Amino acid sequence: MRYYPDASAHLTWKEVNDAIEEVFAEHGRGNVQMPSKVYITFPDGDFRTMPAAIPSMDLAGVKIVNVHPRNRELGLPTVMATTLLLDPATGLPTAFLNATALTDMRTGAAGAVAAKYLVAKKPLTVGLVGSGRQAYAQLAAIAAECIISEVFVWSRSMARAEAFAAAHPEYAITPVAEIQDACACDLLVTTTPSREPLIRSEWVGPGTHINAIGADAPGKQELDPALLRRAEVFIDDYEQATHSGEVNVPISQGVYEASAITGTLGEVVLGAKGRSSPDAITIFDSTGLAVQDLAIARIAVLRVDGMELPFP
Amino acid sequence: MRYYPDASAHLTWKEVNDAIEEVFAEHGRGNVQMPSKVYITFPDGDFRTMPAAIPSMDLAGVKIVNVHPRNRELGLPTVMATTLLLDPATGLPTAFLNATALTDMRTGAAGAVAAKYLVAKKPLTVGLVGSGRQAYAQLAAIAAECIISEVFVWSRSMARAEAFAAAHPEYAITPVAEIQDACACDLLVTTTPSREPLIRSEWVGPGTHINAIGADAPGKQELDPALLRRAEVFIDDYEQATHSGEVNVPISQGVYEASAITGTLGEVVLGAKGRSSPDAITIFDSTGLAVQDLAIARIAVLRVDGMELPFP
Repeated sequence: MRYYPDASAHLTWKEVNDAIEEVFAEHGRGNVQMPSKVYITFPDGDFRTMPAAIPSMDLAGVKIVNVHPRNRELGLPTVMATTLLLDPATGLPTAFLNATALTDMRTGAAGAVAAKYLVAKKPLTVGLVGSGRQAYAQLAAIAAECIISEVFVWSRSMARAEAFAAAHPEYAITPVAEIQDACACDLLVTTTPSREPLIRSEWVGPGTHINAIGADAPGKQELDPALLRRAEVFIDDYEQATHSGEVNVPISQGVYEASAITGTLGEVVLGAKGRSSPDAITIFDSTGLAVQDLAIARIAVLRVDGMELPFP
Repeated sequence: MRYYPDASAHLTWKEVNDAIEEVFAEHGRGNVQMPSKVYITFPDGDFRTMPAAIPSMDLAGVKIVNVHPRNRELGLPTVMATTLLLDPATGLPTAFLNATALTDMRTGAAGAVAAKYLVAKKPLTVGLVGSGRQAYAQLAAIAAECIISEVFVWSRSMARAEAFAAAHPEYAITPVAEIQDACACDLLVTTTPSREPLIRSEWVGPGTHINAIGADAPGKQELDPALLRRAEVFIDDYEQATHSGEVNVPISQGVYEASAITGTLGEVVLGAKGRSSPDAITIFDSTGLAVQDLAIARIAVLRVDGMELPFP
């Protein structure tokens, strides 16, 4: 077994996007084993255990990831992750990875795959609501997949929005004081830890695609339920999304029906589902799948070991 | 984070027994978080993901362990395990351990704790049915807890029983050709991967205690269900035992009732439950708990790091 302390540094966003698109296709075909995430809770946070297997890729393993919101006060990341890969034929542990940066990347890449298939108009303008690590991951992954004409960023503090823009000069990002200005884009990306709707339905125009990334646990939501009802909603996985995704609170409150979900990103990648018209509002509700973690761990290990990736 | 490739070598059986007894007490008090094991299955085996937390010990983590019965043909262990510990306060991964030998030890130690409280007569004679790694772990752990007068071992092949005896001369083990001769002991320990009853009820006399270790997955069983019905049955954990322990097949076949279970080993350690008389037959049905894995990982790390263990 080998330890990979910093495997993310060897990967490009484009190849991560490709690996994540491939694994969503396998998920869409139903060719994966992925039991529910298991949560262990602490007074100041939790950790999630995410086992999975992908037979066609000869891949199996477990991602373990915490969420401790108060870590920022201690100078630690809120989210830290590790992934163990093991050989399906023998169970032998083969690789143990620091997966903190890989988790950011695989989540960004899911957003890029959603943008590739669901954004109505390209080149596209991008509005970011939230300015943390995942806002950057979404932007970088999407930029590797689509041509972006303009980027706007909103944060609860204008100073943070400005700092985000200054930190990523290659994207010529405009900080905005009004959240509506970030919403008036071809692609709106929300990456906040909000527990109440931030984005009002009336701020979002026809043809907008939204990557709703923030909600990843019961009780979290970023979007007005009225917006969900106007939109064609795509999720990553039914069980996870209804339990902990953007739709979890509206479903539990009875203001959104799980039966209204249009489809999964896997079905979109396979061409079985998609946006119905250029004017539809589409939403990708991302919770983050264990199979994404296995897929990125696989290419990270191949790259560090000096092997060819399994796709061009 | 530190990697511990061989932490078991620094532990004595007695201190492992003490740590395992302590964690069964915490389990008996209901002071642990331990969701169900999650199984991922392959054509030639499976792996189980076992997250848990023990607040009173400031301990949290995940054990990941495979079972691939055909590995022996490849010169690999059937069972290989790793444990990740993380800090409950921050989620920071703190230790990653090779847990293959630790898994053997914590399972042996559970048997020793059961023997300490449930064997009727001491010094005791021990009969081993099965002669693999776990037979040795049970014997070594029990020998650190109780005075053993004689040991008998039965295996499907007499050559293997003889090899086991020769490999452990310090225990003066007598190989036996008839399984009944191993059953006629104060403590009978079964450690086979059997899927049908090996031990007939009529072979087991009054006052015997049995450590039934082999059954750890649905479909596995070693004991005649009539023996279960004659006995006072103690399990490690209700949910795990009824799903995958010695009682799982008899319950699913309707020949044993879960309501007939006498109690848990945690309740026994706390003094709330126990054998009713010297003549009762008692059975400890072990499936192996994630909290055992955390408890042994904790003392292994303390010992390797040169720290004092948290008990005498």
